[in-house]
Amino acid sequence: MTDNNESAEKANIGGDGIRIISATWVLPVTSDPIHKGAVAIEGDVIRAVGPTQRILDEFPAAEVTDFHHSIILPGFVNCHSHLEYAVFRGLLDNENFGPWMIDFLDQKSKLSRGDYEISAMLGASECVSSGITTVGESMYSGTSLTAIGIAGIRARAYQEAFGLDDNKMDDSLAQLKDLLEELEEEKGDLVEIGIFPHATYTVSANYYRAIAELARELGMKFATHLAESEEESKYIRSGSGILALDFREKVGWDYLNHEPFGVTPVKYLQQWQVYGPDFMAVHCVHVNDADIDALARRDVSIAHCPKSNAKLGCGIAPLPAFLRAGIRVGFGTDSPASSNIMDMFGEMRTAIFLHRGAAQDAGVLSAAECVQLATLGGARALGMADRIGSLEPGKQADLIAVDMEYSHFTPIHDPYSSLVYGANQEDVFFTMVAGRPLYTRKVLLTVDDEEIAAKAREVKEKLWR
Amino acid sequence: MTDNNESAEKANIGGDGIRIISATWVLPVTSDPIHKGAVAIEGDVIRAVGPTQRILDEFPAAEVTDFHHSIILPGFVNCHSHLEYAVFRGLLDNENFGPWMIDFLDQKSKLSRGDYEISAMLGASECVSSGITTVGESMYSGTSLTAIGIAGIRARAYQEAFGLDDNKMDDSLAQLKDLLEELEEEKGDLVEIGIFPHATYTVSANYYRAIAELARELGMKFATHLAESEEESKYIRSGSGILALDFREKVGWDYLNHEPFGVTPVKYLQQWQVYGPDFMAVHCVHVNDADIDALARRDVSIAHCPKSNAKLGCGIAPLPAFLRAGIRVGFGTDSPASSNIMDMFGEMRTAIFLHRGAAQDAGVLSAAECVQLATLGGARALGMADRIGSLEPGKQADLIAVDMEYSHFTPIHDPYSSLVYGANQEDVFFTMVAGRPLYTRKVLLTVDDEEIAAKAREVKEKLWR
Repeated sequence: MTDNNESAEKANIGGDGIRIISATWVLPVTSDPIHKGAVAIEGDVIRAVGPTQRILDEFPAAEVTDFHHSIILPGFVNCHSHLEYAVFRGLLDNENFGPWMIDFLDQKSKLSRGDYEISAMLGASECVSSGITTVGESMYSGTSLTAIGIAGIRARAYQEAFGLDDNKMDDSLAQLKDLLEELEEEKGDLVEIGIFPHATYTVSANYYRAIAELARELGMKFATHLAESEEESKYIRSGSGILALDFREKVGWDYLNHEPFGVTPVKYLQQWQVYGPDFMAVHCVHVNDADIDALARRDVSIAHCPKSNAKLGCGIAPLPAFLRAGIRVGFGTDSPASSNIMDMFGEMRTAIFLHRGAAQDAGVLSAAECVQLATLGGARALGMADRIGSLEPGKQADLIAVDMEYSHFTPIHDPYSSLVYGANQEDVFFTMVAGRPLYTRKVLLTVDDEEIAAKAREVKEKLWR
Repeated sequence: MTDNNESAEKANIGGDGIRIISATWVLPVTSDPIHKGAVAIEGDVIRAVGPTQRILDEFPAAEVTDFHHSIILPGFVNCHSHLEYAVFRGLLDNENFGPWMIDFLDQKSKLSRGDYEISAMLGASECVSSGITTVGESMYSGTSLTAIGIAGIRARAYQEAFGLDDNKMDDSLAQLKDLLEELEEEKGDLVEIGIFPHATYTVSANYYRAIAELARELGMKFATHLAESEEESKYIRSGSGILALDFREKVGWDYLNHEPFGVTPVKYLQQWQVYGPDFMAVHCVHVNDADIDALARRDVSIAHCPKSNAKLGCGIAPLPAFLRAGIRVGFGTDSPASSNIMDMFGEMRTAIFLHRGAAQDAGVLSAAECVQLATLGGARALGMADRIGSLEPGKQADLIAVDMEYSHFTPIHDPYSSLVYGANQEDVFFTMVAGRPLYTRKVLLTVDDEEIAAKAREVKEKLWR
């Protein structure tokens, strides 16, 4: 541990030339684990990955940092989160999706824009210290963009959109366009703007279609919460249930989005020219074989959020079926308001337990597959695999190092297994995005986390309990 | 973090009088969480628990240690493990129970008694650093007792028993009696000896009955692996499947334990006077309502091992039904050979995700219930709740402290939630058993963990991969 920490500090020293980072294990993800491996970095780009001696020979003048008994791997790609909701973690732990959603609206209304800025900073700093180098962020209050920029992580920042009243659609669309232009101005180099029509029960079919057209006109990716809960299925199928009644009353909408359709949420959305390779469906818990086929045929990607779905009583999304259908899938932690923490190790591990337990089959998901999904899989789901998701020459230097010193990592038969079954967010001690170290020796370099934590505790006092 | 560590060191200073340990939160488990609470300890016993100021006033001369921003709770009671199998973690990660069991036999045969001693030490030291103060240990090679004694934890150490050939039963029983006598001599003050007939497919019905009689004669508790896998159900029901064929061929047994019974494993075992309040059934995944009723009526306790059951493709045991039936249930990590690590936080969290996900209901299990199961529930399942499992005056001073400094513990709305959804074994920084600190400032006081780790890596080289 001490060795790792001292080494991590050195890696913080910049250099114009080549920097080499080595460790007991390097996991390129696209090729086999390398025992005693190294990564050579030039500026923001990976130049070479291989056995340490070969890399040292190739770049004899490079600055070298050895991370000793640890694992270097690509930074995690968290396909779906809401960083702004970090202060809500642990607040509404025991409610099913429908009542949770309604109570959460109450809690959300208690915070000011300044409060959300603090919450987003708390979330962004947790990404850095957890080894999440890219986040698929759904922005509600608009404060995440600043936090993401300060923290220094990479993001697809999707602006959320709501709208059920088609009479107001043109105005909403014009406002959305203006907002997207502002965001494009504001965003940093590591951020791409996207659009996030919220869900089938908060966005009309026509507005979905209009947003899809707008996204394609602007060349933007877009995404939505889809088939998350039985409540959503009930609403789309028969116009009934808590989302048709209590929820609508709560938000003051006195009409239904649609005539009841008698179909699944996936089938419903299919009719409005939404699906394509630029669209990501988040959740997809309540889907049947025909739904999976419809998504696969149009190359829709899926953000799988196993912990959030389980905790809110939504269920277990059929990940093995997604993979069999060849769908691009990544993991999402979802927001801390539902899953409490943003720990991609926890998502990987929970996915294995949920899917093996439910299928009564140890063959449905392995540790190696999970690491692939949490890195390259997520990059593919977000349409960013040309730049990130694996350690390969030419890709961006987004990488992390995980400390394997704890006795429960002893012995290591397989580094994938040690990572997935043993590691936690606390074991990450080094995070680099685009060649820039953001976290070394477990110290955040871009964020004052003690200040953020103190402010977050103050914000907490405004919330119910 | 720094503050916590410095304070933890002080707590290592012994004293003949009263010692007080305080923290931001104290969870007595049998009563509500105490914000700014303290525990007063005299020798090996808890004298008082309450708000810090009240405890300080009550014992003005006491030696006081403040753990600052952390949570003090009873040490975890891990109802089922095999410490001797720690070196096997991560070795056979992707096999279903039947094939896993057979391949594991191959791996087991590769190690010497000395190797098992090292493996058991690795496991026992992981208990200490993970906050497990009591373990329900199934002993195979007989090396765990030494490791448990050195580490200083509390245990019910069950001696495993095997035997299908009723012609040899009298000899086996005599040998078992002798062994139990030796173990009684050898064991330390914090250890109770028990008996562990291995499973329905490795122990004959008559031998089960004889062991039950012996246990009751000696006043010992006993336990067994029960209804773990579909393979076991198939074997008991119809005398077929991998346990009747490949497994028996592997171990060289050329006869069946029994005529096929056409019943469930629980129903099968019920006929042999095994069930009673002194008996613990480990796993109980493949049980129906009648089975649960049979176990509840005879006050059999259950060790629930959610991660092991899921990982080996066995399934999800119906914990909510156990609790509704009033059965005494505790969590077990099972051995690192199946679940890889011994992290009771992980067991609690995984249980929530599995049961909520499978039931599609957030109401089936809460964080507070999980902490209860992982401490007092386990103590009740092992029949030790008169001494351990909660922080109450008169109970043994078995307690741990968990660091809440990481940003993902910010803010804390509810300490149960923070512990269960956020904490991991690495966050434990202080472990005390019977008033004796075993782990302070994340340093093991009874074990040289670097030496053990180095030796464990050597043992690893003997294993397949």
